[in-house]
Amino acid sequence: MTRRALLIGIGPGGPDQLTVEAVRALNEVDVFLVADKEAEAGRAGTGDLVALREEICRRHITGDGYRIVAVPDPPRDRAPKTDRAYGDEVRDWHAARARAYARVLLEQTGPDDTVGFLVWGDPSLYDSTIRVVERVRETGEVDLDYRVVPGVSSVQALAARYRLVLNRIGSPVTVTTGRRLATDVASGADNLVVMLDGNLACADLPGDAWDIWWGANLGTDGEELVAGPLGEVVDTVRAARARVRASRGWVMDIYLLRRRSPT
Amino acid sequence: MTRRALLIGIGPGGPDQLTVEAVRALNEVDVFLVADKEAEAGRAGTGDLVALREEICRRHITGDGYRIVAVPDPPRDRAPKTDRAYGDEVRDWHAARARAYARVLLEQTGPDDTVGFLVWGDPSLYDSTIRVVERVRETGEVDLDYRVVPGVSSVQALAARYRLVLNRIGSPVTVTTGRRLATDVASGADNLVVMLDGNLACADLPGDAWDIWWGANLGTDGEELVAGPLGEVVDTVRAARARVRASRGWVMDIYLLRRRSPT
Ligand SMILES: C[S@@+](CC[C@H](N)C(=O)[O-])C[C@H]1O[C@@H](n2cnc3c(N)ncnc32)[C@H](O)[C@@H]1O
Ligand SMILES: C[S@@+](CC[C@H](N)C(=O)[O-])C[C@H]1O[C@@H](n2cnc3c(N)ncnc32)[C@H](O)[C@@H]1O
Repeated sequence: MTRRALLIGIGPGGPDQLTVEAVRALNEVDVFLVADKEAEAGRAGTGDLVALREEICRRHITGDGYRIVAVPDPPRDRAPKTDRAYGDEVRDWHAARARAYARVLLEQTGPDDTVGFLVWGDPSLYDSTIRVVERVRETGEVDLDYRVVPGVSSVQALAARYRLVLNRIGSPVTVTTGRRLATDVASGADNLVVMLDGNLACADLPGDAWDIWWGANLGTDGEELVAGPLGEVVDTVRAARARVRASRGWVMDIYLLRRRSPT
Repeated sequence: MTRRALLIGIGPGGPDQLTVEAVRALNEVDVFLVADKEAEAGRAGTGDLVALREEICRRHITGDGYRIVAVPDPPRDRAPKTDRAYGDEVRDWHAARARAYARVLLEQTGPDDTVGFLVWGDPSLYDSTIRVVERVRETGEVDLDYRVVPGVSSVQALAARYRLVLNRIGSPVTVTTGRRLATDVASGADNLVVMLDGNLACADLPGDAWDIWWGANLGTDGEELVAGPLGEVVDTVRAARARVRASRGWVMDIYLLRRRSPT
């Protein structure tokens, strides 16, 4: 009696950013489990995201032989101070989510159901779904096997918008978070894609030594792009970020940061 | 009289690894330009790749209102010794390619044609198409505008096969090449995705300090996977790599390398 789950990358925004394989996977799903972010205090304005998920199902699923079940998202402390506290907080939250999912799986899905998770972007980058599903398996309460369907990540979406090659010839790309940026730059990284940065950590770097290519809400109606020498455009980025958040109620942004070659 | 080009990420292998948006873009193309790798001395066995491209067109393009034009690929010196020589060699090769493309564009496409490039994986990672198209524009011989359609890269394909989250919680991912691996590890990178590594550069790292998740020809019939502690599996990887190359005539492989946490 093994339940089967599909973790499906739906791309970083826009209803047609998922692969043909992902469309096929969508059509195999009986029950979609959706984290009910609205249940989480203080995070309103994710209506666009919910609407996008619904649009994807409506557009790409043939027939209506599927259900959507919301799983209440456990509350989360978003202001831990140290890296270690951050890791612990994330792990606690994953454990709480796993319990919520195990409960819903047992109570609201049958053993023959194929369960689907729509994962923003690609499931392998800064997303908790795989970890939470692994935790659900560890609880031993539900017998669950799963497959991951890859998707276009926001890294690719950013690069495509700017028609950028992310790597310089023969050189690496560091994919990191706002929280880690200073550390990575200190270790010598000079070509970085920064995600999960609510505070524009790049503003602390020397503005004349870096170029930035920034994008918010890529692939959606609220998309904004700003690029240029970091010092010259950082205020424009900050303003654009605030504008997107004000008009759409949410903002997700990502940027490429590249150290300028000495001239 | 601006020609329009679409650089379309087709995913890392398998005919359904491209997005719905990419399928739509395919259907807008009048002329596909395909690098004729067969023309390049000493690189046989890419028949699978040509077949996959054809299968993608056959499967996803409605009607047959398109042409495929092969562009002879300039020869390339694949054994430069230094990093600098490597960079120069790549740049010379891009320039030669740009000339070949400009010629074909002028002689074999009309100004109203939409020209398409099928790009393996995602166009932003270790691929020359964007750079070559930029060079074509710089020649000034052809007026050309272009758009990039992102795709799933082999990085995502590898992660999906192993159901891996690439980042450790709150930590970065370094995407690099075999040629750069030693340098990046020396600067402290401990979680790396390695591409373009014909020589298994990881074999030079201490085998008991790293874990590897390796995959070749992902998404195709010849797919092979090997994972485990580096020192224990490196010979198995080498053998699997040779086997894929022998049986399919080509091999493309990628791996995640992660430093083990001290126990
Ligand atoms: C929790 S992570 C999920 C990433 C996702 N798995 C992916 O592959 O893109 C959320 C972060 O991804 C980036 N992101 C996701 N979608 C985005 C979009 N449409 N535009 C800009 N950034 C986006 C932002 O950096 C955001 O903080
Ligand atoms: C010239 S690069 C192109 C990468 C491509 N643009 C992408 O997004 O995956 C070729 C390298 O990509 C990786 N690669 C591409 N397709 C692959 C596949 N199907 N399986 C394993 N590795 C692959 C290998 O590391 C190979 O050496």
